[in-house]
Amino acid sequence: MFEAVELGQSLPKRDYDEQLPSLRADLLKVQRELAGTDSRLLLIIAGMDAAGKGECVNRLSEWLDTRGLDTHTYWLPSDEESERPPYWRYWRTFPARGRIGIHFAAWYQELIPRFAEGKIDIPELDVELARAAFLERMLVDDKALILKFWLHLSEKDQEKRLKALSKDPLTRRRVTKSDWKHHKQYDRYAAAAERVIRLTSTGECPWTLVDAGHWRHRDMTVGRTILTALQAHLQNGKRTAVQVPDGVFVPATSPGNRITILDGVDLSKACDRDDYDKKLRRYQGRVNRLAWEAYAAKRSSVVVFEGWDAAGKGGCIRRLTATIDARLKRVISVSAPTDEEKAHHYLWRFWRHVPRAGFVTAYDRSWYGRVMVERVEGFASPTEWQRAYQEINDFEEQLAEHGIILTKFFLHISKDEQYQRFKAREVTPHKQHKITEEDWRNREKWDDYEAAVNEMVARTSTEYAPWFIIPANDKRYARIEILKTYCKRVKQALK
Amino acid sequence: MFEAVELGQSLPKRDYDEQLPSLRADLLKVQRELAGTDSRLLLIIAGMDAAGKGECVNRLSEWLDTRGLDTHTYWLPSDEESERPPYWRYWRTFPARGRIGIHFAAWYQELIPRFAEGKIDIPELDVELARAAFLERMLVDDKALILKFWLHLSEKDQEKRLKALSKDPLTRRRVTKSDWKHHKQYDRYAAAAERVIRLTSTGECPWTLVDAGHWRHRDMTVGRTILTALQAHLQNGKRTAVQVPDGVFVPATSPGNRITILDGVDLSKACDRDDYDKKLRRYQGRVNRLAWEAYAAKRSSVVVFEGWDAAGKGGCIRRLTATIDARLKRVISVSAPTDEEKAHHYLWRFWRHVPRAGFVTAYDRSWYGRVMVERVEGFASPTEWQRAYQEINDFEEQLAEHGIILTKFFLHISKDEQYQRFKAREVTPHKQHKITEEDWRNREKWDDYEAAVNEMVARTSTEYAPWFIIPANDKRYARIEILKTYCKRVKQALK
Repeated sequence: MFEAVELGQSLPKRDYDEQLPSLRADLLKVQRELAGTDSRLLLIIAGMDAAGKGECVNRLSEWLDTRGLDTHTYWLPSDEESERPPYWRYWRTFPARGRIGIHFAAWYQELIPRFAEGKIDIPELDVELARAAFLERMLVDDKALILKFWLHLSEKDQEKRLKALSKDPLTRRRVTKSDWKHHKQYDRYAAAAERVIRLTSTGECPWTLVDAGHWRHRDMTVGRTILTALQAHLQNGKRTAVQVPDGVFVPATSPGNRITILDGVDLSKACDRDDYDKKLRRYQGRVNRLAWEAYAAKRSSVVVFEGWDAAGKGGCIRRLTATIDARLKRVISVSAPTDEEKAHHYLWRFWRHVPRAGFVTAYDRSWYGRVMVERVEGFASPTEWQRAYQEINDFEEQLAEHGIILTKFFLHISKDEQYQRFKAREVTPHKQHKITEEDWRNREKWDDYEAAVNEMVARTSTEYAPWFIIPANDKRYARIEILKTYCKRVKQALK
Repeated sequence: MFEAVELGQSLPKRDYDEQLPSLRADLLKVQRELAGTDSRLLLIIAGMDAAGKGECVNRLSEWLDTRGLDTHTYWLPSDEESERPPYWRYWRTFPARGRIGIHFAAWYQELIPRFAEGKIDIPELDVELARAAFLERMLVDDKALILKFWLHLSEKDQEKRLKALSKDPLTRRRVTKSDWKHHKQYDRYAAAAERVIRLTSTGECPWTLVDAGHWRHRDMTVGRTILTALQAHLQNGKRTAVQVPDGVFVPATSPGNRITILDGVDLSKACDRDDYDKKLRRYQGRVNRLAWEAYAAKRSSVVVFEGWDAAGKGGCIRRLTATIDARLKRVISVSAPTDEEKAHHYLWRFWRHVPRAGFVTAYDRSWYGRVMVERVEGFASPTEWQRAYQEINDFEEQLAEHGIILTKFFLHISKDEQYQRFKAREVTPHKQHKITEEDWRNREKWDDYEAAVNEMVARTSTEYAPWFIIPANDKRYARIEILKTYCKRVKQALK
């Protein structure tokens, strides 16, 4: 999940200074509008230690009109508070209609460390998260807009920042022992945060992940997201209050300065022919053996292939499945749903093909169509594709719990490379059927697809079903990489 | 919960025969309408052992057009099924758009016995239930109507029916050893069923509880509920598919033959003056002592008073609180919300008064206004009051988890008695302020209030916060009963 946020995003001072005046004016305007409605805004600002939650909240208080704003921190509960049920302290701080409340971490405050430190187990955490999600739904049903921000820091950025804070006499006292302790167990805290964020990113109330490595990017992103979401919410509010405004996405990026996870992919990676032949033989042999081993162990595999048009999915699938015994494998090509499939929930057509114990199913395109093509082309409404992330995570979690080995590939190529391949297809007789008007049309929406991929990875890359983004400008490199990754996944699972 | 279903409801043969033809015609008509839409109907028929689930489903298949209908039983999973995640077998049986699926117990099949037999604990059960509720929400979001029926049998009725089935050579083989085993642990199974039903009675998909002691009542009720709900759903469907039709209520009663939990209350109970004085002194002394003991143990009490207008709530509250030290107690009179309260979620005004450790708070009317007056008077929309049961249960569960002793009284009087008291108020100078036009207006909706009380008790009487319905035609009897019950609850909790 967090790999889609650790992009080293920043915002040059000049851009920041240029954007700030209009952002502030617009925020004040929309805050005034909110004041006249029976809606209200809850901002939950959580994040990694040292991500600058305090700084960010201070800046927001500067930008907004403090007369309509309350800020709440939840340190150790007071006597008054601990004598009542845990949520009492939150209920007393909810903003009244027309107002904005900024809540430091709120009900997430205790959960992440407690889970990371093993003080509660998974079912206990999940029950707590269900309660939190239920509360949020209740407030949303009561016309509140809830925006939850996770200010993220990579391990390296966290270290850098803790050191800087410790050096400065002004900020030294803000760095505590527990900050360093948490930092040393960064992976455990990050994994705990991922589970919490995933299970409470509901359709009506998703998290916004923010790269918090640089303060200007961080605060501008938070500010912009609030503005867009609140504008859409007030528009929407006239019809229905339950919809999540379109502007809330994960992770947020600053406008005019967008970086996605795809930008970090090194597309120059290549593999020469000799090397390729050698490796292909080696890994295909390994795939064959592992498939039989998995069969004996009754462990199925589900392999998902997504990627740009002409990224070479078909070739990769053939190389992977070529050496698996025909009795053990199956390839599902996902195109337009059949009549029968249309008569069911969109996940039904994927559930039906879940393999029996020990078998391998490769999906050439998959359920991710819901949050990619259906989102971008408008076949699914925002409400539909926004809740789909949680639906998909739930589906995959059920597969994983049953012991199915899930591996998801996204084949990435550059826009130029796609152009070359399209052109080549047009002139190669036996490839002409592979290029249509639709491919050219999809290509025009490249940026929208990029944003969709970014959010997809952020929200559905999980510990049990991670995404592997494969650089595929060089087809040989991509094929080997896929074989290698697949072998690794299966081997790990069979251990 | 089940106390509101164990009413011994039946339907005379003549009424049944009279109602049947039109019910069947209407069901077929609405089924044909459904076939032309992109909606579908899932019927989940669960219930106590020997409640006649099979009989009921057979009858439904007779009434409906079998060409648009599929029935699914989930016995031991096949090889095919157990090699896939547990929900695979359900996904393969969901009805296509336009069709009806009847599902025996579905995903609830295993959960209740496993929990009753201690094979899974509360957090594990709750995680499973959250998954079930999530699936149902997904289907409802996809325009399905889901109706879940719980066919209930009291312990006595179950025994009677098991014996009858065992005697008849035709049905003997249907009674298994496990039926008798479950029957011997009736209370555990009933408690397990209550938790399951409560936690999955969501706003969009509540259970319908059916008194299954007599087959004509049982099947007619199920048939009628399907009809009403489906009619409303198809009406609604044009606007939004997510709303629960008004016709789904808990528990269902057959039309023209309505019995509610209030009908079983013995209103002739009385207490003579001498006896009253003696008991009053005794119990008030006990309340005083227990209040101090609870204070020392830091256990708070929340006491809820609901009841008909003029049922004598005020007098009861005074008798209860009179002897509690003024420093320990507080009475909250709930009338129209203040401006500040209106600016918040409806539960906010109740959360704010949750007592500190060791204190006693009595609520003269309460959060139940949402599902009583606001429901009947239309101040809350059906969606709002229907989801309120779950919101209220969640609220009370949080109080109970924190150790707060919750006691809820409903003071019941007859309609005649109310008339006498209203009239008396009108002629007694110091009572004239207690009777208004509104009281007379409310009185006209007596039947609607009765239905609301019935559903309220069915859906919010829980092991941690049961309802006590107090016969209050005789004020002295009611007061003593309340003192006695309160003492019992506190004493139990302090043990």
